[in-house]
Amino acid sequence: MEQLTVNASRVYDIFIGHGVRDLLSEKLSALFGKVKVCLVCDSNVAPLHAKEALSALEANGFSVENYIFPAGEQSKSPDTLFSLLEFLAEKQFSRKDVLVALGGGVTGDLTGLASALFMRGMHLVQMPTSLLAMVDSSVGGKTAVNLKAGKNLAGVFCQPELVLCDLDYLSTLPQKDFADGMAEVIKYGVIADSALFDLVKDGDVQKNLEEIVTACVRIKRDVVAQDEFDTGERAKLNFGHTLAHAIEKKSGFAVSHGAAVAMGMVAVCAIADANGLSDALTLPAVKAAVEANGLSVTSPFSLPTLYEASIGDKKRSGNTLTLVLPNEIGRCYLKTVSLDAWKELLATWT
Amino acid sequence: MEQLTVNASRVYDIFIGHGVRDLLSEKLSALFGKVKVCLVCDSNVAPLHAKEALSALEANGFSVENYIFPAGEQSKSPDTLFSLLEFLAEKQFSRKDVLVALGGGVTGDLTGLASALFMRGMHLVQMPTSLLAMVDSSVGGKTAVNLKAGKNLAGVFCQPELVLCDLDYLSTLPQKDFADGMAEVIKYGVIADSALFDLVKDGDVQKNLEEIVTACVRIKRDVVAQDEFDTGERAKLNFGHTLAHAIEKKSGFAVSHGAAVAMGMVAVCAIADANGLSDALTLPAVKAAVEANGLSVTSPFSLPTLYEASIGDKKRSGNTLTLVLPNEIGRCYLKTVSLDAWKELLATWT
Repeated sequence: MEQLTVNASRVYDIFIGHGVRDLLSEKLSALFGKVKVCLVCDSNVAPLHAKEALSALEANGFSVENYIFPAGEQSKSPDTLFSLLEFLAEKQFSRKDVLVALGGGVTGDLTGLASALFMRGMHLVQMPTSLLAMVDSSVGGKTAVNLKAGKNLAGVFCQPELVLCDLDYLSTLPQKDFADGMAEVIKYGVIADSALFDLVKDGDVQKNLEEIVTACVRIKRDVVAQDEFDTGERAKLNFGHTLAHAIEKKSGFAVSHGAAVAMGMVAVCAIADANGLSDALTLPAVKAAVEANGLSVTSPFSLPTLYEASIGDKKRSGNTLTLVLPNEIGRCYLKTVSLDAWKELLATWT
Repeated sequence: MEQLTVNASRVYDIFIGHGVRDLLSEKLSALFGKVKVCLVCDSNVAPLHAKEALSALEANGFSVENYIFPAGEQSKSPDTLFSLLEFLAEKQFSRKDVLVALGGGVTGDLTGLASALFMRGMHLVQMPTSLLAMVDSSVGGKTAVNLKAGKNLAGVFCQPELVLCDLDYLSTLPQKDFADGMAEVIKYGVIADSALFDLVKDGDVQKNLEEIVTACVRIKRDVVAQDEFDTGERAKLNFGHTLAHAIEKKSGFAVSHGAAVAMGMVAVCAIADANGLSDALTLPAVKAAVEANGLSVTSPFSLPTLYEASIGDKKRSGNTLTLVLPNEIGRCYLKTVSLDAWKELLATWT
């Protein structure tokens, strides 16, 4: 088991390992006392893992409720958010009670935002069950729902107070979803850690899961401690994401986030490569790692057609956009370009 | 003109006086540069004051949009909130742009929450046009929309970056709405400032408006600086509000916030009086001041019937509720009681 501490506006611990879900009751008692707990999960995770978590909490004297919503990105919506908030009010939750997000990124982002909004803030614990959520969304405090106009456009920064990454949950994860998480893992390797990249580039990752997840969370933890509110360095975590969000949106979210990130990373490496903005080894290495981990390297949309969808992104500021470009595997930089320059760069895709 | 500075998680200035709306363009330029401005107002305020504000901004080189929503408490809803957020996305606002809330409490609370949520935070300026908003909701950073289950149950703390209280706007305010604001003014007198109470107790306030508004804002400013996130002292600002929220809710919001606060203050003074929890002069003084300012002292619902609606309040924590009780005019204290004790106190109303 690994333990990492995040020093942000809240200080909190992340536990990573097999069986760390068993720590939940003990940690909740220590942090909050015997509060009411609302376990939030989607319709895929509920039948797999909710009963065990609820029983353990009840056996330890917690009063529990379970809010279940339909699995899928379409639930990351104002409607589901406010349905959860009304549920909490009906069940008479107060500010001192806790929401536990048990699930993937949608569950974590939605529950995190609900915890920030309900009575202007109640307690929050993240228990990610997907690789994507473990290495990315459960840490760092970005919460959101989607608008019709784009992904994650309505949200707040709200750090959790505890994160339990139980690697056992990954054994029930569909292979496609595991691959989605690997897209973010590869991202961390490219932007910050060539040793991590080497560890995962062949797609043979099962035996090193604890090391891999911990390496990713450590990078994210360090970036968040430096730039919690995303005004500078944190933008590096968005490597591949401006195009990924555009691809997801244009596909009506038929392309998953991880798959879109893989395509977005390859595309932005190709743009960098074609314009002499990164070293020559990066593009082929990223492509190979993406493919070895069961992900597609090719966007279903040509890049010039992604321009409109890409500029609705939060990374845009007035008439400029900040890109994350790789110098080489393990190192990246930020480059702010005009929207016109961005349009031209997209046209250089071959 | 008076200028007060708030030292909270954001430091910001409040300008109070006749004609301070004319400072808007100059202050926006100084704070944010030539950003895009979305002026948010309701269907009552728009025809009175929007055009002047928009013209001044455009004349000073700002790119402006105007979002208008139907006047009334029913617009303080998730639907209006997300309609505003979609509007901002459609009009390609970014994090560096600014929302200006021109209006009363509903406009300020709704716009404040939208500013906190849009791309996880854009700039916010409050220009209150009602007395209630000037002395209360525009300062201190509480934002919210209502849930079906109760008022203000979904929101965040988000301080504005500038507040312009132009007293000229009060000349277009309906008398009933002015009286609503006076309920909060009386509240400040009761909880913290007997001189302010004396200044307003006869209802003759027009000639001292700048002094009155400034006194109220100063009290609020000091409380917020001490307890921004409402974990202690700030609860004193809720004098009369637990019952007020219950009255509003039970009336289907037919009773206005100010009217309900007046009733709530008188009721809680009566409860305190009947139980020897305040001095004997407070109840008659509060009653007289409320009546002199055109407000009703009598709740349309008997207090025991307000119990259920009152415990959905945010001030509840588990099985207890924190009451604000007056020692005497100008001084109050917090008293935490069990829900059972609260039920019994409500039954002592005669």
